[in-house]
Amino acid sequence: MKKNILVIPGDGIGPEVTTWGKAALEKIAEIFGHEFVFDEALMGHAAIEVTGEPLPDETLEKARKSDAILFGAIGHAMYDNDPSLKVRPEQGLLKIRKELGLFANLRPILLFDELLQASSIKPEILRGTDILFFRELTGDVYFGEKTRSEDRNTASDLMIYHRYEVERIAHKAYQAAQQRSKKLCSVDKANVLESSRLWRETVQEIAKQYPDVETEHMFIDNAAMQLIKNPKKFDVVLTANLFGDILTDEASQIAGSMGMLASASVGESTGFFEPIHGSAHDITGKDLANPLASILSAALMLEIGFGLKDEAKLLVDTVDEVLKEGFRTHDIADQTTNRFKVLGTAEMGKLVLK
Amino acid sequence: MKKNILVIPGDGIGPEVTTWGKAALEKIAEIFGHEFVFDEALMGHAAIEVTGEPLPDETLEKARKSDAILFGAIGHAMYDNDPSLKVRPEQGLLKIRKELGLFANLRPILLFDELLQASSIKPEILRGTDILFFRELTGDVYFGEKTRSEDRNTASDLMIYHRYEVERIAHKAYQAAQQRSKKLCSVDKANVLESSRLWRETVQEIAKQYPDVETEHMFIDNAAMQLIKNPKKFDVVLTANLFGDILTDEASQIAGSMGMLASASVGESTGFFEPIHGSAHDITGKDLANPLASILSAALMLEIGFGLKDEAKLLVDTVDEVLKEGFRTHDIADQTTNRFKVLGTAEMGKLVLK
Ligand SMILES: CC(C)[C@H](C(=O)O)[C@@H](O)C(=O)O
Ligand SMILES: CC(C)[C@H](C(=O)O)[C@@H](O)C(=O)O
Repeated sequence: MKKNILVIPGDGIGPEVTTWGKAALEKIAEIFGHEFVFDEALMGHAAIEVTGEPLPDETLEKARKSDAILFGAIGHAMYDNDPSLKVRPEQGLLKIRKELGLFANLRPILLFDELLQASSIKPEILRGTDILFFRELTGDVYFGEKTRSEDRNTASDLMIYHRYEVERIAHKAYQAAQQRSKKLCSVDKANVLESSRLWRETVQEIAKQYPDVETEHMFIDNAAMQLIKNPKKFDVVLTANLFGDILTDEASQIAGSMGMLASASVGESTGFFEPIHGSAHDITGKDLANPLASILSAALMLEIGFGLKDEAKLLVDTVDEVLKEGFRTHDIADQTTNRFKVLGTAEMGKLVLK
Repeated sequence: MKKNILVIPGDGIGPEVTTWGKAALEKIAEIFGHEFVFDEALMGHAAIEVTGEPLPDETLEKARKSDAILFGAIGHAMYDNDPSLKVRPEQGLLKIRKELGLFANLRPILLFDELLQASSIKPEILRGTDILFFRELTGDVYFGEKTRSEDRNTASDLMIYHRYEVERIAHKAYQAAQQRSKKLCSVDKANVLESSRLWRETVQEIAKQYPDVETEHMFIDNAAMQLIKNPKKFDVVLTANLFGDILTDEASQIAGSMGMLASASVGESTGFFEPIHGSAHDITGKDLANPLASILSAALMLEIGFGLKDEAKLLVDTVDEVLKEGFRTHDIADQTTNRFKVLGTAEMGKLVLK
């Protein structure tokens, strides 16, 4: 199989971890006899520094032409500390999501048995958890109109949904639920928000087309609580952009660390694969980042992007094996014991490749 | 001391639990020689059934005249299942918050040693946690304009903040931080939302007036994760209405159960005291609800509303003692052992009073 893959390392620890996601893809191509042709492009702070734009046209063009995108992370402390800056790294990520029509962000909570103890949650609560989040990714308060009054004393963001936006992601989530345990939980705040009432109404309608799937509706505040109280009761979770952002980061504790979770954004064409962790400027360049989420993002690309199930499985199994052998990066090592062999980013990356 | 207290039992388990919050106040009045005069009023579904309105004028008038309000819970499955209903119980709660100017919602995460094991989070992660949330309560996407297009296919809610709204709650939070460990974490989504950028800017300004307090800014997604990864690192947490709704429900797992957490809403005049749990229609009328959050709401009323520290402490200590003696309601009982004496709502209420 021949595929064109665009690598966008982005900011912070993005480049460090993406190196290993890319290397994993190269290795897989070698083993299975595929031809993966790589190109690279800038986005975020890295792009602003060079071109003045968080998403240069060249990047977008390359993205449109590629079969899949492997992305690192975005963001920089400079902008976080100065809310008044007009050009911001995150605009690049939001724009590429919108331009490529990446309306469905899939975030599987993959639980490696070996990492049960790395979580702050009790192992007996976690064991057996298997959640697949469908986060809507191109609507909501992320993309609604933003205003700032002239005196700068009032600011607003419009939380807005159109019925078709809810429908298309709901279909994807229900189809996935049919392949899994046939349970779907839709999360909203319909007791307060009109956009959530549209969300709930629409999901109730779509649900009728999937009578084999059992639907539950839950308020976001309750969901944020239930998710850690009893994660096993969730299977497919369908939610809006902002609520999905919050819930999936929270859910990373179920997997032991943010450094373990990958996500796939799909929609109209090219798929976009990235770790759910951020740019983590505090550990950038220190060889402390966990490259496994990028390697698992590569696995998602193989599986969801290219339909290469065996290839994806080999990557996931290899990660599992490395963990079983007791190797850990800092984020998933249990500091209180020295049962583990703690590795830097590069050592961990190399080990998985071997 | 003479005080007029309005009791608003509300919906679902509201009446069952509020009975015990009120009884606790009566007992305290008796012991300390205060005169608490009680009145009662309707709100939510309970009010809609009788008057057609979720917040009848009579309730609002009584509320304005009282020195403090003890509230139960709001909401009913009927409305949750039908997003198209126009008159909704929650409108009553939102309206009374707005009308009474209750802009600051204080949610202390009170951790009873005895309940460390009732949480899904590991006891060693929890031990020593002591967080005080300041949730903004009369702004944000809760109160911004709501629209629904004529064809009903588009719905929106305006997420909006004015600088003065952020300032006044920031001052309250910083003042509390000065009385505690002098650490404040402000939570927003300034990398995406303009209203969050105003929030962050404003908090940065106010921070200068409290140089003895160390300020941290955190994105909501990260905060949702850090809160369960390492709750001990938080002290005062300051956040917007929607983010506060989500984070505090999540934080209820730190305290072992939602059934243990009380909140105080304060602002321009009369304080409003309520459990953070909801109406829980699934267990309504089954004598399963935990009355302790209502009793602890009464304690917050005594302390924050009336400045009666000894009286509040007696209530909290009594709850602690009952837990030490091994008494539990269902939500905080560890079902796997039978070390506990599991009580119904009424038995637990009576026990605390004794
Ligand atoms: C960096 C930020 C804009 C982004 C988001 O909020 O979507 C990130 O948190 C994510 O979840 O991918
Ligand atoms: C019932 C609902 C409107 C309310 C809210 O979202 O504020 C509740 O969840 C709370 O936290 O008090």
